[in-house]
Amino acid sequence: MLLGSIEAGGTKFVCAVGNEKYEVVDKAIFKTTTPAETLQHVVEYFQQFPDLKAMSVASFGPIDADPTSDKYGFITDTPKIGWDNTDFVGTLKQAFEIPIYWTTDVNGSVYGEYVVLKDQLKHGSLVYYTIGTGVGAGTMQDGHFIGGAGTPEMGHVYLKRHPDDLGFSGICPFHGDCLEGLLSGPTFQARLGIRGEDVSDDDHVWDILAYYAAQACIQVTTILRPEKIIFGGSVSRPHFMKKVREQFDRLFAGYIEVGDLDEYITSPHVPENGSATLGNFALAEKLLK
Amino acid sequence: MLLGSIEAGGTKFVCAVGNEKYEVVDKAIFKTTTPAETLQHVVEYFQQFPDLKAMSVASFGPIDADPTSDKYGFITDTPKIGWDNTDFVGTLKQAFEIPIYWTTDVNGSVYGEYVVLKDQLKHGSLVYYTIGTGVGAGTMQDGHFIGGAGTPEMGHVYLKRHPDDLGFSGICPFHGDCLEGLLSGPTFQARLGIRGEDVSDDDHVWDILAYYAAQACIQVTTILRPEKIIFGGSVSRPHFMKKVREQFDRLFAGYIEVGDLDEYITSPHVPENGSATLGNFALAEKLLK
Repeated sequence: MLLGSIEAGGTKFVCAVGNEKYEVVDKAIFKTTTPAETLQHVVEYFQQFPDLKAMSVASFGPIDADPTSDKYGFITDTPKIGWDNTDFVGTLKQAFEIPIYWTTDVNGSVYGEYVVLKDQLKHGSLVYYTIGTGVGAGTMQDGHFIGGAGTPEMGHVYLKRHPDDLGFSGICPFHGDCLEGLLSGPTFQARLGIRGEDVSDDDHVWDILAYYAAQACIQVTTILRPEKIIFGGSVSRPHFMKKVREQFDRLFAGYIEVGDLDEYITSPHVPENGSATLGNFALAEKLLK
Repeated sequence: MLLGSIEAGGTKFVCAVGNEKYEVVDKAIFKTTTPAETLQHVVEYFQQFPDLKAMSVASFGPIDADPTSDKYGFITDTPKIGWDNTDFVGTLKQAFEIPIYWTTDVNGSVYGEYVVLKDQLKHGSLVYYTIGTGVGAGTMQDGHFIGGAGTPEMGHVYLKRHPDDLGFSGICPFHGDCLEGLLSGPTFQARLGIRGEDVSDDDHVWDILAYYAAQACIQVTTILRPEKIIFGGSVSRPHFMKKVREQFDRLFAGYIEVGDLDEYITSPHVPENGSATLGNFALAEKLLK
């Protein structure tokens, strides 16, 4: 049995085929161009695998994931040019007569982490933040995704501003200085005029970013009481995670017991950015049960 | 059949007895003094009703509600003097051999609102904030409480400070200017030197408070995607709710479609502060099924 995974990002699409042990047996990466061209690549890629039994898409958003909606399976009002109102699942359904799971990129990732962590979780309760081109998060409780009337958009919360960052107005086109507007990868360029890869680990900007990421951790800790908060994405380097834990400890003042901070606020457990692919395999397989 | 409700607040305890239609058939209010004296009043009150089949406690906190914990049924590290480490449920169990439900004050309230609203909810997804002596919230999804490793403590998040409020350092003993430290009832006295009841509706302080309450709404909207956000407590007057909606609209910039704001951000639907009592009756009855 083969399972398909599509990790649809604003920069690239990672397509993978896995077996019932969730091992990757084949993989391809496509640049995200127009919807027509990119989805054509995806369809042609998976058409090579006639034994595919189910697939799952973890997509950038916002997406419509309400099964009762006319726009179920669509990428909706995304700022990604050309991609708003794209019928993603409908396009796949035209090419493949197999079950297709549809969720957000971060839900794919949090589910992959859940698959490897579930035996050590008491409440099946996790948060997975990604900090890259944008900031988003997927959340689970009791092994289910959280999100009543729709998928979470946790990058768009406001935060207490760092005293050394008051001159920066943030880059979110909707909100200016929301979490995404203050913490996403492109804020390096906006603040410092250089790219994130070129910022040294001892730059003070990391303290500022950690101050905001720690506040996001406080929000989910007080609202969801998760067992673990995981940070993925290009910004979440080890020295940064250390600073996030320090700021969390200082700002939250031990108000709720969360255990060992090195265990509570962590990097992904699935190696090589594989969380979403693994999550997709597991979500696709669930459709067959 | 009779059901018991204990709404345990830091100022007063509201005890009530209800029938299977959740109608209040008797009620008593006790001032919150010492744990020994207050719980003695509670026990003596309910001993008048030998037909009581189950009861539910909705308590101020923090509480331990983890059934596997040694401290299950305790009020834990509360700032309320004399009440930390109080074995609330254990004391009741010594006096009554009936099932006892144990949750937070705000979970009692959100459950009461859920009981009256559930037929119009698609996802059983609600948030109930109370703004009074403190700030807390209860949250539900699919008809279940949210809170993995423990009960939420949603008053202790940080927020973007209002430009006209930067001189106020907040009154939370743990965090200074967290939501509770900026928005709770006692902040009127701390900011203006007068009590909340004496602050006129056109005072600018309401704009400042609404700015913070609206950010709390944005947090739960983006993290939980609830169908409704309800505000109870003494601070949540109608003119204030109007300002909260206006600030939410302005700050969130329509990023997620939440429908009619008058329906989305509302006052309680159970009249006369009765949400927690009704919730307790329903939670007590659930123990009998």
